[in-house]
Amino acid sequence: METLKAIFTRRSVRRYRPDPIPDEIMQNLLRAAMSAPSAGNEQAWQFVVVTQRALLDRIPAIHPHAQMLTEAQAALLVCGDLQREEHRGYWVQDCSAATENLLLAAHDQGLGAVWVGVYPREERILPLRELFRLPETVIPFSLVPIGYPTEAAMAEDRFNLERVHFNQW
Amino acid sequence: METLKAIFTRRSVRRYRPDPIPDEIMQNLLRAAMSAPSAGNEQAWQFVVVTQRALLDRIPAIHPHAQMLTEAQAALLVCGDLQREEHRGYWVQDCSAATENLLLAAHDQGLGAVWVGVYPREERILPLRELFRLPETVIPFSLVPIGYPTEAAMAEDRFNLERVHFNQW
Repeated sequence: METLKAIFTRRSVRRYRPDPIPDEIMQNLLRAAMSAPSAGNEQAWQFVVVTQRALLDRIPAIHPHAQMLTEAQAALLVCGDLQREEHRGYWVQDCSAATENLLLAAHDQGLGAVWVGVYPREERILPLRELFRLPETVIPFSLVPIGYPTEAAMAEDRFNLERVHFNQW
Repeated sequence: METLKAIFTRRSVRRYRPDPIPDEIMQNLLRAAMSAPSAGNEQAWQFVVVTQRALLDRIPAIHPHAQMLTEAQAALLVCGDLQREEHRGYWVQDCSAATENLLLAAHDQGLGAVWVGVYPREERILPLRELFRLPETVIPFSLVPIGYPTEAAMAEDRFNLERVHFNQW
């Protein structure tokens, strides 16, 4: 898919068919995430590929907006790695750019996905860290359920000229 | 350009030719930014399109890593709008996703760009807010200089299997 088309037509997808996701497509998604820019190229991220049904099914009891995981074939947990952060305060931006790349790559590859926010909510971070046995220096940042969509999402043009200012406010 | 190619080959570009950027391309970049996902679709962002030479040239005195603005034909200042934030703590993620979309769209359109970090550094936020006459509730988040690149950037594969964990750490 052309880049601008992918950017303009990507939408949150929360309903998935039961088809599994091929390994090579999952690798494309991870490569896309790791191709994101980061502060001073610090790449302060880690990724957990979640495909075990038992793990996926436990997440909705932890996270109030994660019910779709019971249908998803996989999820990617994007984490910040504080030991790799060289520019203090920027790991959140690194992980956000990686998450956006993931979403665009998923849409491009015919998959549906959605950015489920974790950080900065402590009540989501702590149980997810425990469930995935993450070290103390690794912070669960966002959770991206992935699957083949049950239906095509409607595109919607979000361009809004009122948000654009020329040279000064 | 195909989406994955754009994601995999995008690089920070800091040297630009003096050619101006057509309005329709600038609008594509802004539409791409505003197509980003945001927490609960809150779209807590604002954009300043900077093309005045005098403004661009004043930024390097404010920001230590913004010397390339003296060569850039334009820059986009991505800002968080606290009055539009509905999910507390997520506006940074909204603006990061918008910035990443901007960078990918610029690369796709043959432009070079780079994510110059502003937030959370107070010593960058305050003088930029003053220069662009932003309201107190609008936070300069990132600055993206844009121009036609002087040379093609080298692609580099950042995929790193050591950052991938399967099901649990």
